[in-house]
Amino acid sequence: MKAGTLEAGEPSHFPPPAGGINRGISIMDFIFRIVAGLATLASAIAMGTTNETLPFFTRFIQFRAQYNDLPTFTFFVVANSVVCAYLVLSLPLSIFHIVRRGAIGTRIFLIILDTAALALLTAGASAAAAIVYLAHKGNSSANWFAICQQYNSFCERISGSLIGSFVGIVVFVLLILLSAVAISRS
Amino acid sequence: MKAGTLEAGEPSHFPPPAGGINRGISIMDFIFRIVAGLATLASAIAMGTTNETLPFFTRFIQFRAQYNDLPTFTFFVVANSVVCAYLVLSLPLSIFHIVRRGAIGTRIFLIILDTAALALLTAGASAAAAIVYLAHKGNSSANWFAICQQYNSFCERISGSLIGSFVGIVVFVLLILLSAVAISRS
Repeated sequence: MKAGTLEAGEPSHFPPPAGGINRGISIMDFIFRIVAGLATLASAIAMGTTNETLPFFTRFIQFRAQYNDLPTFTFFVVANSVVCAYLVLSLPLSIFHIVRRGAIGTRIFLIILDTAALALLTAGASAAAAIVYLAHKGNSSANWFAICQQYNSFCERISGSLIGSFVGIVVFVLLILLSAVAISRS
Repeated sequence: MKAGTLEAGEPSHFPPPAGGINRGISIMDFIFRIVAGLATLASAIAMGTTNETLPFFTRFIQFRAQYNDLPTFTFFVVANSVVCAYLVLSLPLSIFHIVRRGAIGTRIFLIILDTAALALLTAGASAAAAIVYLAHKGNSSANWFAICQQYNSFCERISGSLIGSFVGIVVFVLLILLSAVAISRS
């Protein structure tokens, strides 16, 4: 804990009051980061390993659906992986906040990165959701057919893999809220 | 300004130092809100008024493309309108922050709402972007054809209307950053 005084890039005040609440907030922050990390990892893996080969084929084509047939799903996997990696990398800083309750500079740094990660994750999840909706329902005006009638298990898998991402989004909103409260108290 | 002491729901400290910077931050917050409000309003109007009727028709169908043929675009218009309305409603609170620089409770309240609005706006914009991409490029694996070959001006309009939303997203990230800095300083 001696090193703690060297690490903060900002002069921070050490307020004795409300330290216990801030420690509780920091511990919740740490747990939420692990939850969001696991959720986004699960989403990325579930989507990334999706493929289905239909049992019938013509002479030239074998019918096969993979996640990277649709660029949006590739973006979904990339966005979830990036956010998951960011969450793992932010864990040391989260532990540092449990030890040093008064650190403000690093908390603001994390709020900015959290906001960017939230935006990235939301973009990936909702773009994928738009395509999943199209795969289920199709669109008669644009003459896009519902591919879920053929690729059943593919569709179930891509729908399910959205869940982890949306859990991650909710957790990120809570993380930003917790950080704002912690900053106001320190 | 006498009413100011009655309005804050939270006991707030009045720190004489760094008040000037906080006032500057509050004024920038106000300007950013107007910019984001105009950007999302422009997006909603540009998308909401889009329709194109092709000059040829068969006996039974007239070829016509409207934004509400695709449910994702309806969501885009709704999301942009909601965020625009929220931004207008948040302006009085933003003015209150210019007057009362020490208010922490209302700033945290705004950070939470800003985060939710950011998530909503990102969801709408990226879902619409996924469909616009599909309209331009189509997808051969799923047998979805690029409708932009027929509906040229429709496609230009829906592509252009995304710009306002993405400007709004960037401004929201800046707004949350500014609020975090302002909270840490007060």
